[in-house]
Amino acid sequence: MLDFEFMSPTQFVFGRGVEEKVGDKLAERGAKKVLLHFGGQSAVRSGLIDRVCASLDAAGVECVKLGGVRPNPEIELVREGVALCKKEGVDWVLAVGGGSVIDSAKAIANGACIEEDVWELFTTKRPNANVLPIAVVLTIPAAGSEASKNTVISNDALGMKTGYGNEHQRPKLAFMNPELTFTLPPYQTAAGITDMFCHLLERFFDDVDAVPVTDNLNLSLMRTVRAEAPRVLADPEDYEARANIMWAGMLCHQGLAGVGRHEDWATHGLEHELSAFDTSITHGAGLACLFPAWMEHVHAENPARLAYYGREVFGLAPTGDVCADALSAADETRQFFASLGMPTTLTELGIGEDEIDKAIEKMIPTLKKNKGEVFGSFKKLTMEDAEEIYRSAV
Amino acid sequence: MLDFEFMSPTQFVFGRGVEEKVGDKLAERGAKKVLLHFGGQSAVRSGLIDRVCASLDAAGVECVKLGGVRPNPEIELVREGVALCKKEGVDWVLAVGGGSVIDSAKAIANGACIEEDVWELFTTKRPNANVLPIAVVLTIPAAGSEASKNTVISNDALGMKTGYGNEHQRPKLAFMNPELTFTLPPYQTAAGITDMFCHLLERFFDDVDAVPVTDNLNLSLMRTVRAEAPRVLADPEDYEARANIMWAGMLCHQGLAGVGRHEDWATHGLEHELSAFDTSITHGAGLACLFPAWMEHVHAENPARLAYYGREVFGLAPTGDVCADALSAADETRQFFASLGMPTTLTELGIGEDEIDKAIEKMIPTLKKNKGEVFGSFKKLTMEDAEEIYRSAV
Repeated sequence: MLDFEFMSPTQFVFGRGVEEKVGDKLAERGAKKVLLHFGGQSAVRSGLIDRVCASLDAAGVECVKLGGVRPNPEIELVREGVALCKKEGVDWVLAVGGGSVIDSAKAIANGACIEEDVWELFTTKRPNANVLPIAVVLTIPAAGSEASKNTVISNDALGMKTGYGNEHQRPKLAFMNPELTFTLPPYQTAAGITDMFCHLLERFFDDVDAVPVTDNLNLSLMRTVRAEAPRVLADPEDYEARANIMWAGMLCHQGLAGVGRHEDWATHGLEHELSAFDTSITHGAGLACLFPAWMEHVHAENPARLAYYGREVFGLAPTGDVCADALSAADETRQFFASLGMPTTLTELGIGEDEIDKAIEKMIPTLKKNKGEVFGSFKKLTMEDAEEIYRSAV
Repeated sequence: MLDFEFMSPTQFVFGRGVEEKVGDKLAERGAKKVLLHFGGQSAVRSGLIDRVCASLDAAGVECVKLGGVRPNPEIELVREGVALCKKEGVDWVLAVGGGSVIDSAKAIANGACIEEDVWELFTTKRPNANVLPIAVVLTIPAAGSEASKNTVISNDALGMKTGYGNEHQRPKLAFMNPELTFTLPPYQTAAGITDMFCHLLERFFDDVDAVPVTDNLNLSLMRTVRAEAPRVLADPEDYEARANIMWAGMLCHQGLAGVGRHEDWATHGLEHELSAFDTSITHGAGLACLFPAWMEHVHAENPARLAYYGREVFGLAPTGDVCADALSAADETRQFFASLGMPTTLTELGIGEDEIDKAIEKMIPTLKKNKGEVFGSFKKLTMEDAEEIYRSAV
């Protein structure tokens, strides 16, 4: 068990109708004027934005709106948000949406308190303790950004997508109403579930020996997500299933499932290049293709660990051949994602045999820029490894 | 899944030698003068108090010492601590010890910021937002007080032992070095493990239907504690086993293992009367006797829940008779505690057939005062139920 520090200061307000409490809770914390940040029109049409605004109004908290966050959120809108915060004297950033909106809000909350252009933080990775406090009304359980220390932002001009970790950007308040996820389309629901499951995989597979307390907690979340996923897809208005998935999505990425371990994060790095190359690719769908391919590529490093995962999560009986068991675990993972309606190959995402050369030519240089010559922990991957994994996923 | 709010703002600093960081971390948080609160002489003799003081000195943080906290900490020393904080202008309370020291520190941190006598909080249970910030150097994994919202204090003059819950008294900083637990005697180690396991049982058994995400997390902790306990007892200097137990002890009581559930806490209520009646009884040892007795008494309310626990934690195969399975789960629990060296009957704790009438006569009235006419959630217990449970544990 590695030494570690851990803190998750988010106050979670979970259950039916909690979005009506946004104003009171923010006022309690001293908020005077928030930037209300959101995505497309669905949150407006559903009446959610109006309900949140009414709650702010009733509590005497002023509000400046900035919508239009897209999937794979982009730095230009972040810059617009930063300028707006500075101009309007905003003291809290309130994200209403999923991971993209929250990630964009985190970037804005950093940018609003610093002098330099906010993209600098993503390139220099310098620590920044000056961040506006962030509140979140979550509508898509997936990225875990409602409690995590991470944000991922795309820069179209540079063709890059990169992350920035900062303990100070963990949201202070997260409002989580499972009913708000009833209307999520099946594909988005499935991509979110894939994403949260992969947050556990990234933590479970690294170069550290067993850490039972962390590993058991991690496996318990894998089993929960695996069991609740089909219930949610079968009945999108199953409150209990939606609630379990929503809370699990937070726990998958808040940090507890990895304490005392190095964690890996190679596959997330590979996927970020994929959806930077083609921004129409949903992060979860990219992961569904790449994670099993990564497992197959690296399994020989520690087949017992993969076999253990296969036994504990999918109930795979040991065959006596631990490498075969490891590969079965990788394939079960692929089948699990497929059962949710996720793709299993990059071809299904539009990057087939004809496209892969062009994609690799674009992705490898930025991967190298983002990750360095080698990356990952379970196996240290070179750029050659990365290329092999991409090609094997076609 | 019930609606809930949850926040665990503690910053955990975990690993070898972390007590050397106390000064710097407190100075970072703006501490100027701490009340250094501890128990008997063992922390002094081991050099721990000196190391912590040196760390405070080096960081320019002043320190006022108050030792002498006993197991089942008492209100008189709390009052002394409150007076000292007020007189000295202390701005943080630093507990170095186990649950008793931390609980005493929490009571002091409340008392230091209010006008009325601090015992009033324990009788009125009124919310109190004015609490000195608390830091902890943990030496006994058991009570989970290093992250919990609870404190339990005895009042010898009134013959009472009662709890006070307050989100504002969750410690801000917890330093957890598993090496500090190497010298814990086997009985204390076992009592601590029993206590943390019971914190999970109290959350697992209530009147709410399955909450898979919470229940799976809870069960994962039960399995971890059950597997690591014999390793710790076999080799007290097994760092990995001690580390897993230490971190698990925190997770067992910080709250996550019960979110979305009512939780029960009847057995803790019963035990508090027991160790108020005889302050030589260690909390964990009292629980070891009472929890299996409680399970047997209440099993018919929801035998399937007990049977499920027996399968998941002890691997008990279903017999087709769910009530029998439930009773087997209760007995396995008893055997588990016994395997750690815990007593299985109150007789072993000095309350045999000859003593139980006198004990009941003393305990039931204060139980009623603390808990009301009925208490618990899995089954609503009356004072008659309580008496039966005590008697069946003899």
